[in-house]
Amino acid sequence: MKKNAIVGQSGGPTAVINGSLYGVVSEGLKQAEKIGQVYGMINGIEGFLAGRCMDIGALSETNELEYVKTTPGSYLGSCRYKLPESLSDPVYPELFKKLEEKDIGYFFYIGGNDSMDTVSKLSRYAAGINSDIRFIGIPKTIDNDLVHTDHTPGFGSAAKYVGTTVREIATDAMVYDNKQSVTIIEIMGRHAGWLTAAGALARKFEGDNPVLIYLPEVAFDQDAFIAKVKESLKSTPNLVVCISEGINDGKGKFICEYASDVGVDNFGHKMLTGSGKYLENLVKEKLGVKVRSVELNVCQRCSSTLLSAADLDEAVNAGIHGVQAALSGETGKMVTFIRQPGSSYELSYGTADVNLICNEEKPVPQDWITQDGSDISEEFIAYALPLIQGNVAIPEKDGLPIFAYRK
Amino acid sequence: MKKNAIVGQSGGPTAVINGSLYGVVSEGLKQAEKIGQVYGMINGIEGFLAGRCMDIGALSETNELEYVKTTPGSYLGSCRYKLPESLSDPVYPELFKKLEEKDIGYFFYIGGNDSMDTVSKLSRYAAGINSDIRFIGIPKTIDNDLVHTDHTPGFGSAAKYVGTTVREIATDAMVYDNKQSVTIIEIMGRHAGWLTAAGALARKFEGDNPVLIYLPEVAFDQDAFIAKVKESLKSTPNLVVCISEGINDGKGKFICEYASDVGVDNFGHKMLTGSGKYLENLVKEKLGVKVRSVELNVCQRCSSTLLSAADLDEAVNAGIHGVQAALSGETGKMVTFIRQPGSSYELSYGTADVNLICNEEKPVPQDWITQDGSDISEEFIAYALPLIQGNVAIPEKDGLPIFAYRK
Repeated sequence: MKKNAIVGQSGGPTAVINGSLYGVVSEGLKQAEKIGQVYGMINGIEGFLAGRCMDIGALSETNELEYVKTTPGSYLGSCRYKLPESLSDPVYPELFKKLEEKDIGYFFYIGGNDSMDTVSKLSRYAAGINSDIRFIGIPKTIDNDLVHTDHTPGFGSAAKYVGTTVREIATDAMVYDNKQSVTIIEIMGRHAGWLTAAGALARKFEGDNPVLIYLPEVAFDQDAFIAKVKESLKSTPNLVVCISEGINDGKGKFICEYASDVGVDNFGHKMLTGSGKYLENLVKEKLGVKVRSVELNVCQRCSSTLLSAADLDEAVNAGIHGVQAALSGETGKMVTFIRQPGSSYELSYGTADVNLICNEEKPVPQDWITQDGSDISEEFIAYALPLIQGNVAIPEKDGLPIFAYRK
Repeated sequence: MKKNAIVGQSGGPTAVINGSLYGVVSEGLKQAEKIGQVYGMINGIEGFLAGRCMDIGALSETNELEYVKTTPGSYLGSCRYKLPESLSDPVYPELFKKLEEKDIGYFFYIGGNDSMDTVSKLSRYAAGINSDIRFIGIPKTIDNDLVHTDHTPGFGSAAKYVGTTVREIATDAMVYDNKQSVTIIEIMGRHAGWLTAAGALARKFEGDNPVLIYLPEVAFDQDAFIAKVKESLKSTPNLVVCISEGINDGKGKFICEYASDVGVDNFGHKMLTGSGKYLENLVKEKLGVKVRSVELNVCQRCSSTLLSAADLDEAVNAGIHGVQAALSGETGKMVTFIRQPGSSYELSYGTADVNLICNEEKPVPQDWITQDGSDISEEFIAYALPLIQGNVAIPEKDGLPIFAYRK
């Protein structure tokens, strides 16, 4: 008997989270003999609970679904709603009643760690009440920190953005190469340094900028940092340093929190400044050289111009594979990427128990980080390079990208 | 009699300043019956005085000159060196002796306002000593604030970057559209608001984000701003605001300076924070909504990915036209862009007396700014759109752009 499908997006967006949405919707429509309507929940599970839902399958009647594929942000809107730990909470029967009203048989949730927690709870509740609704998680995160998958959709495009942009900024930073300067680039990643490591892709030759790269996986020592910067300036007068927003002292304190020890703004609030800004002030104070900090900010996760074709393809495939897994009877699973052994890059798709994923984080391996913690190794480059290959032609009008949006 | 040419770059780079360098060098090489060597001064006039010079014409023997064309930053390096006001300063004979040693007949300087001041002084000194060296300025600035030219090379690509990136950030900002939020985007331009105005290009429909745009040409009233944000949130719950880094109170004080009235960092220094960060704190305090600020920073001037094909073409042509002007006997001139009247965009190239340019600034016309100073008009869109057209295919390797650099 034909059932309907529903798809939602949750957590912070990536440049390809809508690629996975496209994959789910297009495959859902293709499987018309097994799937009826394809619905989209607006603002994730939170919006769905409030009755917000759309017929996203209908987008295929115009160009809109094609536009969705390369539009940054979350087309359906997102939420940061955590379902209650106790499966006897009344929200569960309420939610399943709403799912049954829409005759849902297949539920797809595109997101990171927290979204997999939602998939876990819903599939466990379903098992408890003998519901036959199948729950599948589609991974996404620029942080690349999900376990049981080689990498996550969204990381490749963010890494391409970081590699390209750090190379551009380093080129810009060279223009006064008769004077010393330090440029500190702050990159997203609170707990895992994968994206910051992608700064290494920017190097054009051995010893090129960024000379120093600091990840949150290693305790950050401020004195050692200053000594390293001082030493590096001797061979690289216009020094570029990449740091993760999440660098910390190894004792549970973020480096950016050192700034707020003293600074207070106009309104008497503690100054909230990034780690980059804090280190900018530190270098200025200790070394007296010209220094600036650049925060790459949300552009890392929403640049459509620097989409990686490999990443977008895999994101779409993740959505397609999720639908196929659900149809073949799987539930409580997340789609995973399996890299085939060997020197050429080949990827296959699988699934893993979502319960093994939702409360874990995958850091950059310690042996991919150099001994003094100021650089990453060639293993990372070999791992990351296949993920940033290829460009995507974005539909354009008047010199600007066309993005889909809900009217 | 055949003379040599020399070219330099000065001031902050743009995404196409190397396009103009390419234009000068390729045209210089093409005019081989009139021009001998084509030299490049390293780090502008300051480096040249220190004897730093290269045979840039030789780059055409490999792919390197083609790579230069689309490389951000200043390939030759830059300087911020101001020649003395008094033409009787000993630096002038020293400089001309060095020019004569290299048998220079043609001198090209690619830069903004201050660089045109250099061209002015050198051409006036040359007239005084009856030197026949010809001095030509090639304009560049993302600020678009040079007079006697319709626009400047570098502005189009920066405007394309701003239009695209603001559209991407606005799309990202929409994902929690069931909650109120304010995103403040800080755009370069200390005195002229041209680039900030380009934020308006991001709108996909009337009333779309960025709903508010503030330029330095209008005195910024903090109370009026808060009232406007509050009002705008009613119709646009995820509000995006573009501000120029140079917004000021109209009495000579930048808005960012209000922050440093109180804030002091760890080292007892006044906190230097941008206008965006200051307004982020202000909105948080006054309206209590979720707010973040994003500084587009140097990416505005060094993004090769978002090069405008129109801008790059014109930048190359500006270099070519400069060489042709020098060969036809002109000196003490800057290359200018003349937009032909009519509805279709057509550009011709001319020259103007560099003395009329070097100490002037061109603001955005007051009648292109809406009455309450919170938006710009359709005239600006019509002016800017032709300048952001077309994409440039950047040579690539391993998924990243190839950039030229001096070994």
